[in-house]
Amino acid sequence: MADRPKALFTMHARYLSQLFPAPLMDRLEKLVDIDPSLVAQRFDQPEVALALADAEIMITGWGSPRVDRAVLAAAPRLRAVVHAAGTVRHLIDDACWERGLLVSSAAQANALPVAEYTVAAVLLAGKGVFDARERYRADPAFRRREEDPAAGNYGRRVGLIGASRVGRRVLELLRPYDLALTLADPYLDAAEAARLGAELLPLDELLRTSTIVSMHAPDIPQTRGLLDRRRLALIPDGGMLINTARGALVDHDALIAELVTGRISAVLDVTDPEPPPADSPLFHMPNVFLTPHVAGSMGNELERLGRSAVEEIERLTDRRPLAHPVTQSDLERVA
Amino acid sequence: MADRPKALFTMHARYLSQLFPAPLMDRLEKLVDIDPSLVAQRFDQPEVALALADAEIMITGWGSPRVDRAVLAAAPRLRAVVHAAGTVRHLIDDACWERGLLVSSAAQANALPVAEYTVAAVLLAGKGVFDARERYRADPAFRRREEDPAAGNYGRRVGLIGASRVGRRVLELLRPYDLALTLADPYLDAAEAARLGAELLPLDELLRTSTIVSMHAPDIPQTRGLLDRRRLALIPDGGMLINTARGALVDHDALIAELVTGRISAVLDVTDPEPPPADSPLFHMPNVFLTPHVAGSMGNELERLGRSAVEEIERLTDRRPLAHPVTQSDLERVA
Repeated sequence: MADRPKALFTMHARYLSQLFPAPLMDRLEKLVDIDPSLVAQRFDQPEVALALADAEIMITGWGSPRVDRAVLAAAPRLRAVVHAAGTVRHLIDDACWERGLLVSSAAQANALPVAEYTVAAVLLAGKGVFDARERYRADPAFRRREEDPAAGNYGRRVGLIGASRVGRRVLELLRPYDLALTLADPYLDAAEAARLGAELLPLDELLRTSTIVSMHAPDIPQTRGLLDRRRLALIPDGGMLINTARGALVDHDALIAELVTGRISAVLDVTDPEPPPADSPLFHMPNVFLTPHVAGSMGNELERLGRSAVEEIERLTDRRPLAHPVTQSDLERVA
Repeated sequence: MADRPKALFTMHARYLSQLFPAPLMDRLEKLVDIDPSLVAQRFDQPEVALALADAEIMITGWGSPRVDRAVLAAAPRLRAVVHAAGTVRHLIDDACWERGLLVSSAAQANALPVAEYTVAAVLLAGKGVFDARERYRADPAFRRREEDPAAGNYGRRVGLIGASRVGRRVLELLRPYDLALTLADPYLDAAEAARLGAELLPLDELLRTSTIVSMHAPDIPQTRGLLDRRRLALIPDGGMLINTARGALVDHDALIAELVTGRISAVLDVTDPEPPPADSPLFHMPNVFLTPHVAGSMGNELERLGRSAVEEIERLTDRRPLAHPVTQSDLERVA
């Protein structure tokens, strides 16, 4: 198989065996000529420089160094970067676009676990389960009354902010439930939202009419602090904010001010800053379910990213179009 | 509409307005002749006795008194009991079967919220989210490593014990995820399990091979203490038990012994006893997510039960077969 293109791993070495368990690595080695014992995290070591000089495909992951002009100069044969993780924003330099590199990411595969965390958070928040747990812990005599009008997922209005990959997958996964789904996204029209199973609403109206609001917008300059004090105040009393996207989307001073009064509650997998200061009330408020950025791919979910990358490389070597290409313009509006 | 059959509500009055919000009550009143201001919780009051003497249909709910021989004697025209809640075990006396009453329950509608809680618990437990939350709360510096081999829902083996209504709905709702679903149920064959999307396994093998085990068996004499010390020990290290069914299915001394070592963790919406004693370690162990029996229908979910009942009454008055009939033999093997 002398015609297998040469490839090179660049990422934190510790992820490799979970991204590419033995059967998947075997499959990869049938497609490309790669040294599985060489996992570059820098490009200035002699053996890496040597591999780089020949590499046609770079298989990147968390911890990959940026592919900048200098790297490209040292990689004259490079034609594709296949990222076995989500966003390539930090990875891909403008020089890559100038060179005409093919770039692929596993962002679609990486969206699934985030969507799954979100779906679970919606279902439990809607039933008031997080709240009931805290109250029961504080008082073994606590019982929720069945007729509690604040509880339940029958007809509950759930508003998603952002029709991102994660947002779309959340809509898909929430379809079998009896929820009323709404969506705010400046790039979508009502017909497309309806196809996704949601009613398109202006952001402020979505906030006013949703008792669960979930963030799925990218972290770009236009979305920083999107949920500011004014907008957070639009969420109805008893409402719940879920953020599995990025902390920067929400003004955290304003959020904390809302949370400490108990007016709304939150499930936060991301914060700003992250982690919060050790003395932040976010850690201990009973109406906050705070997790340390665990919604993304973890553990066995890394294999899904690896498989996505191997399938992309299969397409490359078969001269078929990539299934998950990333273009320069994509980076302006997606995560 | 002189031919509308006479009907009577029996339940705790406080549930009525949520079971039957105005539009649903209007629909019901078009079908039957019923006094919405009379909600009987006892049968010995004069106005109730009067209504009972004429009633053809009894619409029952939580808090309904048992329909025994004496009640039947006072209700000579009664031909159907439509229960706007789950099990009718406590409600329906043998005398009802002797009389040939039609009995319907909203157990199918009532199964949905329990299944939804379970699905959410599976997804979060599989990602180690409950654990990560507790650790983050205890230590703001805690970060989960992405390569943590114990985490993730890709290919995770989830074993369901009992193909009950809830169990079947959980299987259905978990189908879009990349989980490996298994099922133990003495009343099912492998082909039927496969149709439900699961591999049928003997109970012990299911326990040995599942990192998440979820209880969906009925609480009947044969299932009391089904998960005893020996069987709990079969769950692999790091495994998780979810119980949204009944506490009596699990030997709680044995369960607590496993939990205090940290070998396994649990999501428990039900316990034995319930609630646990105030000093039970279940309330505070970091590997236990304990909630006060909230998985069933709550809040707006009561309307789903009411709608199920109204639709059954529509079938009755149309002389169509019930969609959710309960028979005497059902009660021997279902919840």
